[in-house]
Amino acid sequence: MGLHDEIFEQPEVIRRLLRGQRSQVQEAARLIRRHGIRYAFLAARGTSDNAGRYAGYLWGAHNSLAVALALPSLFTYYGTPPSLANSLVVSISQSGKSPDIISVLQEGRRQGVPTMAITNAPDSPLAKAADLVIDIMAGEEKAVAASKTYTAQLMAVAMISAALETDRPERWDDLEQAPEWMEAVLKLDNDLAIQAQRYRYMEQCVVIGRGFNYATAFEWSLKLKELTYTIADPYSSADFLHGPLALVTRGFPVLAVAPSGAVFETVRDLLVKLRDQFHAELVVISDDPEVLQFAQTPIPLPAGIPEWISPLITILPAQLFVYHLTRARGYSTETPRSIHKVTETN
Amino acid sequence: MGLHDEIFEQPEVIRRLLRGQRSQVQEAARLIRRHGIRYAFLAARGTSDNAGRYAGYLWGAHNSLAVALALPSLFTYYGTPPSLANSLVVSISQSGKSPDIISVLQEGRRQGVPTMAITNAPDSPLAKAADLVIDIMAGEEKAVAASKTYTAQLMAVAMISAALETDRPERWDDLEQAPEWMEAVLKLDNDLAIQAQRYRYMEQCVVIGRGFNYATAFEWSLKLKELTYTIADPYSSADFLHGPLALVTRGFPVLAVAPSGAVFETVRDLLVKLRDQFHAELVVISDDPEVLQFAQTPIPLPAGIPEWISPLITILPAQLFVYHLTRARGYSTETPRSIHKVTETN
Repeated sequence: MGLHDEIFEQPEVIRRLLRGQRSQVQEAARLIRRHGIRYAFLAARGTSDNAGRYAGYLWGAHNSLAVALALPSLFTYYGTPPSLANSLVVSISQSGKSPDIISVLQEGRRQGVPTMAITNAPDSPLAKAADLVIDIMAGEEKAVAASKTYTAQLMAVAMISAALETDRPERWDDLEQAPEWMEAVLKLDNDLAIQAQRYRYMEQCVVIGRGFNYATAFEWSLKLKELTYTIADPYSSADFLHGPLALVTRGFPVLAVAPSGAVFETVRDLLVKLRDQFHAELVVISDDPEVLQFAQTPIPLPAGIPEWISPLITILPAQLFVYHLTRARGYSTETPRSIHKVTETN
Repeated sequence: MGLHDEIFEQPEVIRRLLRGQRSQVQEAARLIRRHGIRYAFLAARGTSDNAGRYAGYLWGAHNSLAVALALPSLFTYYGTPPSLANSLVVSISQSGKSPDIISVLQEGRRQGVPTMAITNAPDSPLAKAADLVIDIMAGEEKAVAASKTYTAQLMAVAMISAALETDRPERWDDLEQAPEWMEAVLKLDNDLAIQAQRYRYMEQCVVIGRGFNYATAFEWSLKLKELTYTIADPYSSADFLHGPLALVTRGFPVLAVAPSGAVFETVRDLLVKLRDQFHAELVVISDDPEVLQFAQTPIPLPAGIPEWISPLITILPAQLFVYHLTRARGYSTETPRSIHKVTETN
């Protein structure tokens, strides 16, 4: 069992979660409605923070819920947490052990607002402190770099959204199909093993995504840093234009997540500009034949994935790309230097 | 008039702002109290977004206000903005022209919540759409890379905070002193011109800050990207431990903002670890003699700066460091390649 197996476990993990936590997620939706919640106050770090970014877009777009990302040091060092009035406090943590994330949840309890934990450790201190726990049921994750716990967190976030949209039962059909889409993209494994070779000596890159897949850009970039030690900077296509575009010279590698959907055109326009005016090197995950055609490294998605669940699918080829690049560089895919599975920060 | 002059104008700019907008800021505080605001919904991009990060910490720590950063694409592309109920919508934009930032403010009006613009362009479309405008009065900024408009935005954020703390009039004394602290650090100019030479061939780095100075880490990093074309990744010292630490090898450059205050020890502990265990190269802005002593490039701050206003001061040596590094590399300090003063994104 290692990272590669855990990447391949993902369809099964989210199937199990869909079956196993549906009633608990309905409970979460009832809690949100009962308290008249209009915004969520969300605490997470690392990979879990990227699942939080997805929640920001999805709960905003489908559930009218605004999401504020917690600034944990206000709780741990400054001792002057903000008012959490009218909010739902949500903590996302694989291990449920990071003291700063627990602090935010405890402060929510102290202020009398409802609290929820999304975790792979239902017996953890975090879970014990929460009013309601969504157990992502991903099983033990042995590789230090998170893969299946990330997509399971995304699925938990998506299930909460679907449970809140009582008038859109078809959302559940989309979720039921997610494991099949995942299985389809996992078939890219051999191709990605070859494609990744070209980036053997890449030292730095940027990763572009927007909207729902802003989270994917962050998570792809985090995996690149953790496993391949590449300096990888994530951006939304809009933020990238506000300054960092200055970095790009001929051959500069730009990795992009560009599935069909509401933000596709704005991401495509940036990619066209990067290719035509800046002669950038493009690695593109997309289902659009045109955009794939002008990438040096096209990573094709099957057609028809609903945009809102696409982050559960698009991250899989990104994980495999990083896995194979790590091997190409002769680094460990299981235990990256310097970091550990559980990071306890204040 | 160029970037160097604009950096040196900063003490005067914030003096003018302190005098010129005090009553308008009191008006903002009244608006916030009258509406019983408990959280701010904040929209900004680029440098202005970094001023927004400062607001997140400061308004949280001193005013119990939670801050949610807007996700503009929910307003522009998805057309499904979240509920802004109970919030104050705050848009920060130098030019007041970016359509996505204006959209967020307009949606606030549509939903009937109070709106505020912090801008250098009181006649801009953004200002016209807002209930209340704080004019940062920075004068025309000619260099493409923002300097004085950034510290003026920070000052506006800090003045709003002070106006809300009616029981802490001494906050205004701190603000009155800020221009003098600025003048003190501007004296580092010649030293920084020499110190920056060492980084002539640095291609990538990370920038560390936490709490109030998390914003400084982001802004230092953005200037490095815009002007010196260095891949510079900003992190809080806690997030850095959740994965990106894996990047660091012997000689890897870590730039850090570590003034005295509540988070000083946690940042110092990371720097000690980076130096002792990882043999990283450290560039450190601090007033702590010990931490300065183990940096290869110490950038000393005067003692006694109150932590909450330190971001207005710490960014100045960072700006000068970037200015001199840009010159050392023979690049333009005024018109970086590829980017423009006003970036209009949707």
